Amino acid sequence: MDNAIILAGGQGKRMKADMPKPLFRILGEPMLEWVIGACEKAGISDICVVKGYKAEMIDEYLDGRYETVLQAERLGTGHAVMQAVSFLKKNSGSDTLVLCGDAPFIDSQTINDALARHRADGNSVTVITAELEEPAGYGRIIRSANGISSIVEEKDATAEQKKIKEINSGAYWFRTDDLIDSLNSLTTDNAQGEYYLTDTIYILLGKGKKAGAFISQNPDVVLGVNDRKGLLRLNKTARENIIEKHLENGVEFTCTDGITIGRDVIIGEGTQILSGTVLSGKTVIGEGCVIGPDCIIENSTVGNDTKLNYVQCYDSKIENNVKIGPFVQIRPGSHIKSGAKIGDFVEIKNSVIGEETAVAHLTYVGDSDVGGCVNFGCGVVTVNYDGEKKSRCTIEDNAFIGCNTNLIAPVTVGKGAYTAAGSTITKDVPADALAIERGDTRTVEGYAARKLRNRKKK
Amino acid sequence: MDNAIILAGGQGKRMKADMPKPLFRILGEPMLEWVIGACEKAGISDICVVKGYKAEMIDEYLDGRYETVLQAERLGTGHAVMQAVSFLKKNSGSDTLVLCGDAPFIDSQTINDALARHRADGNSVTVITAELEEPAGYGRIIRSANGISSIVEEKDATAEQKKIKEINSGAYWFRTDDLIDSLNSLTTDNAQGEYYLTDTIYILLGKGKKAGAFISQNPDVVLGVNDRKGLLRLNKTARENIIEKHLENGVEFTCTDGITIGRDVIIGEGTQILSGTVLSGKTVIGEGCVIGPDCIIENSTVGNDTKLNYVQCYDSKIENNVKIGPFVQIRPGSHIKSGAKIGDFVEIKNSVIGEETAVAHLTYVGDSDVGGCVNFGCGVVTVNYDGEKKSRCTIEDNAFIGCNTNLIAPVTVGKGAYTAAGSTITKDVPADALAIERGDTRTVEGYAARKLRNRKKK
Amino acid sequence: MDNAIILAGGQGKRMKADMPKPLFRILGEPMLEWVIGACEKAGISDICVVKGYKAEMIDEYLDGRYETVLQAERLGTGHAVMQAVSFLKKNSGSDTLVLCGDAPFIDSQTINDALARHRADGNSVTVITAELEEPAGYGRIIRSANGISSIVEEKDATAEQKKIKEINSGAYWFRTDDLIDSLNSLTTDNAQGEYYLTDTIYILLGKGKKAGAFISQNPDVVLGVNDRKGLLRLNKTARENIIEKHLENGVEFTCTDGITIGRDVIIGEGTQILSGTVLSGKTVIGEGCVIGPDCIIENSTVGNDTKLNYVQCYDSKIENNVKIGPFVQIRPGSHIKSGAKIGDFVEIKNSVIGEETAVAHLTYVGDSDVGGCVNFGCGVVTVNYDGEKKSRCTIEDNAFIGCNTNLIAPVTVGKGAYTAAGSTITKDVPADALAIERGDTRTVEGYAARKLRNRKKK
Repeated sequence: MDNAIILAGGQGKRMKADMPKPLFRILGEPMLEWVIGACEKAGISDICVVKGYKAEMIDEYLDGRYETVLQAERLGTGHAVMQAVSFLKKNSGSDTLVLCGDAPFIDSQTINDALARHRADGNSVTVITAELEEPAGYGRIIRSANGISSIVEEKDATAEQKKIKEINSGAYWFRTDDLIDSLNSLTTDNAQGEYYLTDTIYILLGKGKKAGAFISQNPDVVLGVNDRKGLLRLNKTARENIIEKHLENGVEFTCTDGITIGRDVIIGEGTQILSGTVLSGKTVIGEGCVIGPDCIIENSTVGNDTKLNYVQCYDSKIENNVKIGPFVQIRPGSHIKSGAKIGDFVEIKNSVIGEETAVAHLTYVGDSDVGGCVNFGCGVVTVNYDGEKKSRCTIEDNAFIGCNTNLIAPVTVGKGAYTAAGSTITKDVPADALAIERGDTRTVEGYAARKLRNRKKK
Repeated sequence: MDNAIILAGGQGKRMKADMPKPLFRILGEPMLEWVIGACEKAGISDICVVKGYKAEMIDEYLDGRYETVLQAERLGTGHAVMQAVSFLKKNSGSDTLVLCGDAPFIDSQTINDALARHRADGNSVTVITAELEEPAGYGRIIRSANGISSIVEEKDATAEQKKIKEINSGAYWFRTDDLIDSLNSLTTDNAQGEYYLTDTIYILLGKGKKAGAFISQNPDVVLGVNDRKGLLRLNKTARENIIEKHLENGVEFTCTDGITIGRDVIIGEGTQILSGTVLSGKTVIGEGCVIGPDCIIENSTVGNDTKLNYVQCYDSKIENNVKIGPFVQIRPGSHIKSGAKIGDFVEIKNSVIGEETAVAHLTYVGDSDVGGCVNFGCGVVTVNYDGEKKSRCTIEDNAFIGCNTNLIAPVTVGKGAYTAAGSTITKDVPADALAIERGDTRTVEGYAARKLRNRKKK
Repeated sequence: MDNAIILAGGQGKRMKADMPKPLFRILGEPMLEWVIGACEKAGISDICVVKGYKAEMIDEYLDGRYETVLQAERLGTGHAVMQAVSFLKKNSGSDTLVLCGDAPFIDSQTINDALARHRADGNSVTVITAELEEPAGYGRIIRSANGISSIVEEKDATAEQKKIKEINSGAYWFRTDDLIDSLNSLTTDNAQGEYYLTDTIYILLGKGKKAGAFISQNPDVVLGVNDRKGLLRLNKTARENIIEKHLENGVEFTCTDGITIGRDVIIGEGTQILSGTVLSGKTVIGEGCVIGPDCIIENSTVGNDTKLNYVQCYDSKIENNVKIGPFVQIRPGSHIKSGAKIGDFVEIKNSVIGEETAVAHLTYVGDSDVGGCVNFGCGVVTVNYDGEKKSRCTIEDNAFIGCNTNLIAPVTVGKGAYTAAGSTITKDVPADALAIERGDTRTVEGYAARKLRNRKKK
């Protein structure tokens, strides 16, 4: 089966953090995840990750999703791949992709197109390359009549070679058995005393095999990162590329400042994304929505024609024609049905809000099942926690919950029932009933004057 | 009377939305509105809009403000203007401006200066042009001894003509009767089989009339839009131009990220606008204010020396020396008087807040008339809705509303009166009185231990 | 003692504000403060500020921190320094630094290195210079065998001299006595009729003294400002330079839009600063934190591994592993201890929140001392103000405060005690007790139907 080895042993000293370099994040996800994602999208599910620096963090991150091998010493890219020989042997007879865990912009189309070329040309190794207007610093590809003859590093390049614009991205397709074979012949006979993966090319050429190169149409495949500044730059590239994709899909942006959209987010035509909005994870936004300014939507689904203004929403579902905000938090497990209106300073948690229901202001609805056309007054609290356990409130269709009502869960407010403002409701309210809890009201005339006299006495 | 025809029939397929192109928005307003606004500011109030694609949306948007005619088939710019012949005939003897509805940055000064030149030179037609450093793609203006001799499209231009930097903006002044006359002579005798408006120039020149060109000092007049990316670019241009105008007027910006200011907004000298702030509609901000970060102010008036921090304010008035925020919403119909202080998590709706009144936190004041020097405790709710109708609360000068008080409207709290914390007030409170509604308080000693025992039994 | 004169008399007419130019702000602090700060950091604490336009505003700003002298008429830079002669005489025998109050990016290393060169070379005057790729507009430095021979203004420069890239920053070290001496010889015998400080160089050279130049490694030392646009540009420069410094220190930024960090802020390695965040004053952030989006932190200390999301925090301390937000304000004098969790729509003011305490939502804790592992229900209010005076609440370890509880200060809730939802607590609650204040609850069956009937009658 076609398979991939991802080199993830690097440290990234200049990042100043005790973390393997491939775990640094682009748009909130580790670069390693971007590389894995490209493999998965290309249909490659047999992956071996070579870990090295802080190897346990790679294991913790992968959590068993993929095989890992340890490169205990750091003796070069060839040495890294050598640690995966038993993985390669299991895949004998197939082709192996080798990728850098810290070059996050490799994409599935490049992977698949390169493989097609690799096979069509009968290559033992195919280098994935890109053409750059400014190739300085990268290894240049030296083409031969029959493929490529070598990769020349910047420092070894002649003036003429430095003009070559085709450069090595650090990603390769190998015929698996040829890779195993050539790894056996690698030596440390060079200035750095390391095993270079690129030396396999010469070994294979020496045996009369073919080495080729595939030019990716996506020049970002070559981008890697050495320090925090570079990481910021890659984040910028990723942000801009993703926004551009959504522009092409008919999404409206009028000011992209502060907008970050995860690579898997889907947005419908005609939806406006306003400044300061962060969409991440498996979020899907429908058509004709206005999202923002300053919304944070994570792993959530939003229907059509919904308006969110300064809303944070996590792991929840919001249907069509809903209006929420400003200053609202929708916490995980919530489902806001069509036509609902949620106003300012409201938190919804692990609750269903029925169709056309209004939760206008300063209210907490937690662990509750709320029907349709319910009206919440201001300051309502579903008291879902008694210090020991959490319980649910049920509020049926057309109920009217008075301002500053406490609903002590578990409790049900029946269909069309009312609760009076300021009441604490501990027992179920029958349908169409009014529940009222209130003390006597006294009026103390002249209180202010007395208060003033007392103050003066003091 | 001088008059204008605005061509608004285009579709904008690459925008990916079922909408006439001139309805796409720049800073929240349709491009068509920008073009209409420039006419109005130039004193031209007799306007005919030529609609085509999704014509009903143009009508719905204009809502009868201006005459429209339908271009049922899309047979070129000349054909579009031909639909307005009866409009032109009503205006016989005057001059007619023809504008593109999707070139939003035409400005009133260009319009008026071009007309002055048009008349001074005795032209039948005057093309509004601009000089661009990079003219590629635009029609080039070929000057003659006496005016202009033609407009050469990019694809027809010789190498020499391509060097010409004066280009056609697509806007024209015509002597109205000459325009009517030349429209009759237009043919579709060309590669595209369309009626070109530019052909009127040759028709008029052929009749011995004069054609001239007026170079606008504002090169942005030529900017149009074909896709969402272009729309984003035009929004950026508009944002930057408007911010620059305010900088020149003495407004302070330290970071313009996320700032969008509508073209009609007025801001006083010495006011600071902080990042993430969006000002729109007929908003007027005084001098010496600090607005932002992250304020949204729409159709509102703000006095001098007022500070707003994370405030959203719609269709309201805020006076001088007011301090609001963070996290506050002022909803339509509110009037916040001088010296008031409004703290976090407060919503004011359709209410008057008197001078020096304090609404510190977590409070909703809706449909209320609040006097001066009133103090609201935390968690106060004006209960303005009983499930059937809305009513108003009146809170007179110097009143003190205790925390978590519910004021059940209609109700009046008299001058200097107090309400006790946690009270629900259903009847008027006389001046200087204290209203208190409270149940008995019981203390259950050892409750926690009993609770613990119960838990263990389970 | 080494000392400095800062020229702060300028008006800045094009800024359009009645304020001395050096009081305009970069990242929230007057440019004058940046210049003073550089002196202080360089160990120079003897400073004389020359004020002129709106001199009283300089005095008000400095509030007696440093000596000021008035330049009543504006007769040039030499004239400005002449006003400080008695300051200089007190410092006879030392060296004097002369700085522009509106060139904010002078830095302590440049000051000290220039002084070292000044002394090592035995100079009477040493001009602080910079080398610019685009020197147009600045005075060029003419080097001599032995130091410098003159400074040529742009308008007087020959074509050859205009190619010189070393330019005058407007900052100088003088041997104090030589400065006093040369000021006496200054004349207004020039086109502008002003006393030029640069003329002291020729006077000193004429007396056989040495004049030299020190090239700062920081080309931003030359940057000044003439209008609001320039001020915005300098703010941008300052923002970017500071962010770059933190990137080098291992701080993570993925999108810098709307981020402004004050020059004295300290941030630990591995901390992420998200978009829209403003850190100012003497703020210190620990390691491994996530700060933002949209946090405003002023003069506060934040520990390690703390997460703040849409939080505003002023003059407070937040410890380790605290999670706050979204939409929270921490007002001055607060101390949030390790492991605390503060949820949405909460205000904390002048209070201590103990370890592991949870304040989940819609709550105000003001003037309170809260122990560890306390649980606040939703809608709790510490009623710290009775209209006359503020009092404190004490809430001891493990207490459980029910939803919508009012705690009327002064009051103590003992260890492990409970308050029931909706209660107003006016007396101390013993440890482990439950305090409950509640009226009778009545249920009015069929209320909704009756209400409906009434409505129909009307």
